[in-house]
Parts: sequence; C-alpha cells; structure tokens
Amino acid sequence: MKITAEEIWSAVRAIRETVPVIHNITNYVVMNSTANALLALGASPVMAHAEEEIEEMVAIASSLVINIGTLSPAWVRAMFKAAEAARKRKIPIVLDPVGAGATSYRTRTARELIHAVPPEIIRGNASEIMALLETNVKTKGVDSTASSDAALAVGRALHEQSGSVVCISGETDYTVGPAGIIQTRNGHVLMTRVTGLGCTASAICGAFAAVTQDPAAAAAEAMAVMGIAGEIASARSEGPGTLQIHFLDALYRLSGEDIERMLKIEAGP
Amino acid sequence: MKITAEEIWSAVRAIRETVPVIHNITNYVVMNSTANALLALGASPVMAHAEEEIEEMVAIASSLVINIGTLSPAWVRAMFKAAEAARKRKIPIVLDPVGAGATSYRTRTARELIHAVPPEIIRGNASEIMALLETNVKTKGVDSTASSDAALAVGRALHEQSGSVVCISGETDYTVGPAGIIQTRNGHVLMTRVTGLGCTASAICGAFAAVTQDPAAAAAEAMAVMGIAGEIASARSEGPGTLQIHFLDALYRLSGEDIERMLKIEAGP
Amino acid sequence: MKITAEEIWSAVRAIRETVPVIHNITNYVVMNSTANALLALGASPVMAHAEEEIEEMVAIASSLVINIGTLSPAWVRAMFKAAEAARKRKIPIVLDPVGAGATSYRTRTARELIHAVPPEIIRGNASEIMALLETNVKTKGVDSTASSDAALAVGRALHEQSGSVVCISGETDYTVGPAGIIQTRNGHVLMTRVTGLGCTASAICGAFAAVTQDPAAAAAEAMAVMGIAGEIASARSEGPGTLQIHFLDALYRLSGEDIERMLKIEAGP
Repeated sequence: MKITAEEIWSAVRAIRETVPVIHNITNYVVMNSTANALLALGASPVMAHAEEEIEEMVAIASSLVINIGTLSPAWVRAMFKAAEAARKRKIPIVLDPVGAGATSYRTRTARELIHAVPPEIIRGNASEIMALLETNVKTKGVDSTASSDAALAVGRALHEQSGSVVCISGETDYTVGPAGIIQTRNGHVLMTRVTGLGCTASAICGAFAAVTQDPAAAAAEAMAVMGIAGEIASARSEGPGTLQIHFLDALYRLSGEDIERMLKIEAGP
Repeated sequence: MKITAEEIWSAVRAIRETVPVIHNITNYVVMNSTANALLALGASPVMAHAEEEIEEMVAIASSLVINIGTLSPAWVRAMFKAAEAARKRKIPIVLDPVGAGATSYRTRTARELIHAVPPEIIRGNASEIMALLETNVKTKGVDSTASSDAALAVGRALHEQSGSVVCISGETDYTVGPAGIIQTRNGHVLMTRVTGLGCTASAICGAFAAVTQDPAAAAAEAMAVMGIAGEIASARSEGPGTLQIHFLDALYRLSGEDIERMLKIEAGP
Repeated sequence: MKITAEEIWSAVRAIRETVPVIHNITNYVVMNSTANALLALGASPVMAHAEEEIEEMVAIASSLVINIGTLSPAWVRAMFKAAEAARKRKIPIVLDPVGAGATSYRTRTARELIHAVPPEIIRGNASEIMALLETNVKTKGVDSTASSDAALAVGRALHEQSGSVVCISGETDYTVGPAGIIQTRNGHVLMTRVTGLGCTASAICGAFAAVTQDPAAAAAEAMAVMGIAGEIASARSEGPGTLQIHFLDALYRLSGEDIERMLKIEAGP
C-alpha cells in the first residue's frame, strides 16, 4: 500500500478546511498538549469523560480517541459507553493502550475495549502492542526498543487477531492493515524526551481518520505528519522544552512542500 | 459605561501588589495554563475540588472561578458547595460555562449553578451564553461565529435573566452589565489556536474581580488585558506554540504604556 | 555534611545512564510539567493513581513521589496503598505536602501518610513543613516567606518527629538529615512565577533518590540541580513563559561544568 505526499497534504488541507471535532477521552498528563496539537493542526478537540454526557459528546464528534494513560473505574465505564456510541454512529475509533503490559488493569482494559468494540486504529509502542496479543508470537523479548522484525511480527499478529489497523511507533513506524504494511521513518530522537508525544500521535490519528476513509492510510498520514513536524521542530530546538513549542508551530505552519521534501514512507515489506 | 487605560493599569498594579488568591475549580485541560496565567499576571492561584476541603479553600480566596469544562458528579457537588461558601463570604464568583449547549449535562449544570448562586460574572462564547437562556431571543442561529448583533441580544437577555454581568468573548468582546455595554476589541485570531485561552480569560476575570469592585468593570479590564497581551505575544510568535509562551511573558511584563497605546475599548451601543 | 559538584554530576550521569522509573501520584496541575522535567533530566516518569493498579506500578518503579496538591478520597487511598507497596519493596518515597496548613484535609492527609509510612524525604515550603509539626516550635509566624532561622527550626523539629529528611525550599533551601544540614542557594526569583516548580523539585528528589543511597544527599543534589537549571533558564528568559521552556532545555543540557561553576552549597550551620 502506497501513500503519496500529495495524499497526505490533501488530508491536512481537509482537516484545516472541515475542522473536524475530535472527542478525546485521554489521560490527565497529556490533555493540554494533545488539545493544543489538534488545534495547531486545524482540528477541534473536545475532552469529556462523564458517563452523564459521553454519548452526547460523541454525537457531535467526527472521531473518538481513547487513551488509557491514567485509568480509573469511572473513566473505563465512560470509555466503553463512548466506544459503543461511536460504533452506532459509525465514526472511527482510535485506541492508545498506554502502559498495556505494565499493569494487568491496563492490559485487561485495553483487551476488553478491543473485544467490545474493535477500534479502527490501535496505536502504541511495540511492548504495548505485544501486551494486547492473546497468542504467542515468536519474538525475543520485544519491548519498546524491539528490533524491527519483532515489532512487525507483533503488529501483524494483533491486526489478524483484532481486525484493527495496528500502528507501532518507533524509529520506524509500522502501520499494519488489510492491504499490507506502510513504513514511515520521519521523526527525531529528541521527541522521546517530551511527555505524551505518543499520545499526541494517537490524537492526530483521530484527526486524519476523520477525513481519510481508509484507517491504514489515516494512521500512516498521521505518523508522517507527526514525524515531519517533529523534525522541523527539532532542527530549531535546544532541548525538549523548546521542542514542544516549535512542534506546535510546525504543525500549524506545515506546508505541502515540507511534506514533499521530507517524507520518508514506503510500502512493504 | 467607560473604562480608561488608567483604570485598567491601576487594577493590574493592584493585582501585582496585593497578590489575591484566586480559587479555581476548573477543567483538567487548562489547570496548568490558567495557573500559569494567573501567576504571570501577579495573582496567586489555588486549585482544589474535593468536597472535604472546598469550603476551607474558599475561605482563603479573594475570588472563585468555576469552569465546567470537564465535569463529573463529584466535581459538580464541589462547585455548588464552593459557590455557596463564596456567597456567604461575599467574594465574587466567575462562571465559565464551557461547552454549555454541547451536552445537556453541561447546560443543566451551568443553569442550576446560576439559579443557586448567581455569579457576579458569566464569561463564555456566544453559543455557550445562548444555551443558558431560558427565554427565546430572536437570533438567526447564534453560535460562536455569531454576528455581533445576535451576540449582543443574547448577552442582554442573559444579563436580564440572571442579574450577572455577562461577558461574551469573540472578535469583539461584549460585557453587558447594569450600566450598559462595554466593547473591547483587542486580541488576535491566533489565540483561538491555543487551547483554553477562553478559560484563561475567565480566570483572569477572577483576578480583576478581586481588586475591582464593579464586576462589569472587572470583566472588561480582564478582556482588555487578555487581548493586549495576546496581541503583544502574537506579534512575536510563529504559531500557537510560541504564542502561549510569549503570552505568559506579555502578562508578566505588561506596562501602563502598553495598555495606553494598544487599548481598544468603547462604551455602548 | 558536604556534597561536592562532582558528586552531583555523578548522580546526574547515573540518572541519564540508568533511566530510573519514577512513579508519581501527583496533582492535576503539574502532571505534564513534572513528567517533562523528569524526562528532560533523563529519568522515566510514570503516573498512575487507580487502586486497581497502583501496587503493580510501584513494582516497576525505582522511587515513589506522592504529591497532595489536588486531593480526593480515591486518590488518598491510592497514596496509602502505594506508600505501603514502596516500603515493602524498599524503594524511596518522597512526599510533597502541597498546601498543608491551607486546609485541614491536606494537613491531616500529609500527617497520616507520614505516620503510616515515613517517607525518606519530605519537601515543601516553610509554611507547609510547619503545618506538619505536632509540637510547638518557637517561631514568629513562620510562613513561606519565613526568616531563615525560623525555617531551620521547623525543619529540624519535623526531622526529629518523623525521622524523614526534611527539605525546605526557599531563597535558601535547607535539607535537614541525620548528618546535619545542607544549604543550597541556587535558583532565581522568576521561578516562583511558574506553577508547580516546587512540585517539580519533589519529583526530581525522587529521581536523585533512585540513584543516591543517602536521602539527604539526594535531596540536596535535587535542589542544586533545580536551582542551577533555573538560573541558566532565567538568564535567557523574558518572563515565566519562556522560563519554563528554557528550564526543561537546561535540565536536558546540564553539564558537569555548569554544576562546578554555579553550585552554591554549604554544610551547616
């Protein structure tokens, strides 16, 4: 499956022109930074988690992003309710299984969400994705520093198990969908020193899924735009503080030429 | 009703000299950024939401800001308790009805708060203010991009209904009080790309209400200072990332000359 | 007790090399900024507060930081559970009694935490530390602007009462431990205009406690690094907005030479 710079730029323009409402049920740590990233890109974030209003909020959204980074029982109930409401309305769901594998509460919650309402896109690092697998995959100690091959095997296995597009972020991002694999290689290592840029990637998957029909294309577009904005920002930054600020500016100013010039994407293997 | 640059500057100096404690019960998304804005301006923010301590916290505050941006039942109970404690202590209350109209939970909560303890100031965008009205106002689809006339009609209607000063922010900010209308026209469109600057405006209304007796004057002072700091910051920014940082610096460095030179305010119509 | 620039730099390098996991149960206002500070320094922050997972999360951490800045009953229960799990695993605990003295809920919770599981380090300002004392200390109205002598008396008293290392931050930071007192004098007044830098100091105590056996040394190292990074950042900043960004960059770029050149530390009195 191939995604071109033109397609990515066209999706960015669609976000800027249609300003899709992205409903986020996310963790306390990143609420501000993900809302700012969505606004900078051109989307319209809303955050709501109360069972009392979750269905009404889903009803005005173009996609739903669920992030389990700071779970508690009331929030988990709201996530299930929101996912069911999103499914009824046929809007895309993105799941970010933050910390799956670290505690059984997170692993169980993420697995149950996937069973109840399979999301269009699951985005995480290799160890989080690994934790969601219910069958054994031959890997040698896959974690977030996993080898590419191992990450890929895990991504394929979760895609087969869940039917969801699985996006594993790392130095190379792998997006595994029904039409094969897309690899994106944009980004900068300094981005790992800013909290929640993975969560931001998931939120941005939600924005692209609101304007791009195919979830695998949407996820790959999101990863490319994240990575390119991160590279632009890193080149101007002296550390993770300035990076997070320039990253928002870069999302806001991103042009078709930037994407054309910087995109590192390929289909396969 | 007329507010001069001298009066605004005098209120800023009063905040810097008396460092009023502003108690915020606000949403998760903006807690950090509103606390930073209050500190940059010269006030002293506190955040507390537990029913166990809310009355004691109100007891050390000079004003109370209630923001319904990420509601849940325990927080709603705390908001009522805090509002009643503020009323008993006769400190001003600012209500920000974030998302009223988007879900019935928010609309209902904001209306009930206004009934139970009418706030001194209600600040929102046109569609939020519209949602709080209990009578029909002749407008054509008022929303946050409403025409000036429609926004004004809605503001007047809510002021008559509630007795509160009603501040509708937008390209022009309308502050509707018993002595008439104040229009402020400071600000920059890039500010709409930073999450929670509306919430920040409400928090800053709280700071000015702590030092300015008349709530309408306090609200107009706050909107002018927000807008002027936003203009100063926008002129130095390349996007919403740098804007939010320079905005805090601009609040911190704001001078009487800045206000004198940049203020766009008028009474009426 | 004496701490040298070499020892501090050696601890910084140990954090960067071993990337210790610091489990934070902290307040909503500062979650993002403390996570970013820990990442910038080289540690690995996790945030989790659900009773359902708190013990498993402690099990992967190298230290635990408890901050009572936005309490509610479910969070308090999680704090106790986490503290007990940390004690069983013998990992260091840092307590930040934010707002102790402001409400009885905070004072009581902090005192009960200290009784149940005495933390290795308690870090707060003079008025917060004062509120934790259960015996009278002769001071004249100690608060966060307390005189040095009064702060010191209070710190000594709480250290004797609790057995914890007590770190009182202010213009001079006093670290009171069994081997005496360490004074650090780094920092800049502009840091008081950024929300949560005290909370960040406590989180960073957690990082140093993960690599430095002696809690008093760890606390003094943390205060020195906070202050030096703050001075570097302040010199480049025009206000509290740019300060918070440059502070993260400074933590990230901090060198042994910076520490050697800038450190203001002394043993005694």
